[in-house]
Amino acid sequence: MSDPSNAIKISKVSESKISTVDFDDLEFGKIFTDHMFVCDYIDGVWQTPEIMPYQPLTIAPSARVFHYGQAVFEGMKAFKDDQDQIWMFRPEDNHERINISSHRMAIPEFPKEFFFEGLTQLLHLEKDWIKKGKGNSLYIRPFVIATEEAISASPANSYKFMIICSPVQSYYAGEVKVLFAEKFSRAADGGVGYAKAAGNYGAQFYPTSLAHKQGYQQIIWTDASTHEYLEEAGTMNIFFRVGDTLLTAPKSDRILDGITRKSVIQLAEDNNIKVEIRRVTVSEIKEAAKSGELKEIFGAGTAAVINPISGFEHAGDKFDLPKLDDSYATFFKDKLTDIQYNLSEDPHGWRYKV
Amino acid sequence: MSDPSNAIKISKVSESKISTVDFDDLEFGKIFTDHMFVCDYIDGVWQTPEIMPYQPLTIAPSARVFHYGQAVFEGMKAFKDDQDQIWMFRPEDNHERINISSHRMAIPEFPKEFFFEGLTQLLHLEKDWIKKGKGNSLYIRPFVIATEEAISASPANSYKFMIICSPVQSYYAGEVKVLFAEKFSRAADGGVGYAKAAGNYGAQFYPTSLAHKQGYQQIIWTDASTHEYLEEAGTMNIFFRVGDTLLTAPKSDRILDGITRKSVIQLAEDNNIKVEIRRVTVSEIKEAAKSGELKEIFGAGTAAVINPISGFEHAGDKFDLPKLDDSYATFFKDKLTDIQYNLSEDPHGWRYKV
Ligand SMILES: Cc1ncc(COP(=O)(O)O)c(C=O)c1O
Ligand SMILES: Cc1ncc(COP(=O)(O)O)c(C=O)c1O
Repeated sequence: MSDPSNAIKISKVSESKISTVDFDDLEFGKIFTDHMFVCDYIDGVWQTPEIMPYQPLTIAPSARVFHYGQAVFEGMKAFKDDQDQIWMFRPEDNHERINISSHRMAIPEFPKEFFFEGLTQLLHLEKDWIKKGKGNSLYIRPFVIATEEAISASPANSYKFMIICSPVQSYYAGEVKVLFAEKFSRAADGGVGYAKAAGNYGAQFYPTSLAHKQGYQQIIWTDASTHEYLEEAGTMNIFFRVGDTLLTAPKSDRILDGITRKSVIQLAEDNNIKVEIRRVTVSEIKEAAKSGELKEIFGAGTAAVINPISGFEHAGDKFDLPKLDDSYATFFKDKLTDIQYNLSEDPHGWRYKV
Repeated sequence: MSDPSNAIKISKVSESKISTVDFDDLEFGKIFTDHMFVCDYIDGVWQTPEIMPYQPLTIAPSARVFHYGQAVFEGMKAFKDDQDQIWMFRPEDNHERINISSHRMAIPEFPKEFFFEGLTQLLHLEKDWIKKGKGNSLYIRPFVIATEEAISASPANSYKFMIICSPVQSYYAGEVKVLFAEKFSRAADGGVGYAKAAGNYGAQFYPTSLAHKQGYQQIIWTDASTHEYLEEAGTMNIFFRVGDTLLTAPKSDRILDGITRKSVIQLAEDNNIKVEIRRVTVSEIKEAAKSGELKEIFGAGTAAVINPISGFEHAGDKFDLPKLDDSYATFFKDKLTDIQYNLSEDPHGWRYKV
């Protein structure tokens, strides 16, 4: 691993498919760019990485990922500014987090040099896929899967680390209403909720589909033991604005330590907005909604950026949230995207030039 | 779906690889037979199933199974008796259970006709891979994976149902010692623990690898809230023999409803062995171990059949279990395998002729 830039083997597509893509009508995560990054772990070593045309994998039906969900992923974005420069947002944190996830899932950690060299070279190749203008971005999906051909329930000895990219616009179209979980749960104490482990997500599909039928796009998960503490949504951490104070759940082994979440907390501090990081109860939020003290709820995550929530239901009680002129959600969304698109100062050094 | 036997398309290997296999030295789940069963779900319909040579899948890197662990599986066995007849054990229950798992994971259920016709035709093709003699069997792995090429976190619209088969001998070689979980956990209330969902298994690899380092092959999971109730092991339900009474945890949404477990409970009733199905506490088992009342612990599951446990540790306290002449583990293993290998009566109609 002396100089990773020399180490990556690159084979390009003969012709880009970009001209077939309608960038004004993108469904989230359906279209992929021309190339992908692949690195295999064999005999205890990450092999020479490759960038190659985006293409199907050839993988044994007995590969452990299919049977035991030994797989983790990340979600990042690349942005283009008016000078055609490409930026990412705190990508070191994603690298750290995929390794935290991997550790919990008994997957070998992926070297930082390979991660960043792979990202950089891939994004340079795919630069035309990143469109200017707030709201446009390239969603980047690093992931690792267990490829060993053996169906005994134990960690694999071979893995594939990959990065695929998908041009995206906004994640949720329209307003989002949420259901507070009363019966189902997302994560156990001592479990893998804090990891971006594949199985955490599939496990939410069924309860979320029930919520859809009731007219809710998302569930806000509560703790599995009492269902009294509000934790996070499927792909976003959650903030509650009560009066002029922001409340959000603390980190725990059930909650993903979101990069957007911690950026919002920092921006709040920078802007003298009070944040309480503590357990937030269902009953206090319902009380605050009744008394009118609850001003906003919003989600924070890479895919959705900041997503205002317009109403919620718990135990049959339904609440609508007011439309505000001085919404924190809008404030943080503007602040964050200004930094992401190189439209403002970056006092914390969050921007990363690709 | 009029007559499924006509519906299955079969293409055979030109030459079997069976002569390359050493059936006296099989590592669990490493060798696969010549053929596999495949059925795709497209546009809301399970398509015509196929039996084809065992071969790698061609699958997009964006397939949801890789990212969100939307996948379930089953584990079954086929046995051969002295008259070369092939038998399975309660396979209707596996079919029911894979659909229960699928339901929880928002995967479409798989039709019974296809399941049984696929199994039957596949096993007839692979009959030479099933060796006679107790301990020899063909392990059968039905599984379903989400194949849709899209990385938004929602249920897929395309799936692949497959059956692959692996000739096996015993699952654990040698004696098994277990650690009672104190910190990590396997499943949350309101979660997916009762489903054979892929992610439940990968999530156990890391804690189990820590147990290995301490000299334990398996963990007996406890409830995530208090770690005071003993639940099940990674791939086995657990029985405790205190005096002459068997104790085992009740079904719950955290525990897999094991077919071996319920067969043991029935056999115990048939043989006037008292079984208490109730929450079993860590402290009562430790007390019983201290007083000498704890006679045995054993696991029950398709892969391991009945697996005696020779010792356990909890909170630094270590206990060895005595070797018994009149072991219940041996008794149930003999009873079960006699039925499975067509060596005894089958009063409950558990045997299924293929
Ligand atoms: C469960 C969960 N919570 C929160 C988040 C938000 O994290 P981040 O802001 O790092 O994207 C995500 C998405 O990454 C997530 O999957
Ligand atoms: C978590 C778990 N518990 C118990 C069992 C035992 O179930 P069965 O007896 O049906 O094989 C299994 C294996 O199938 C399992 O995966």
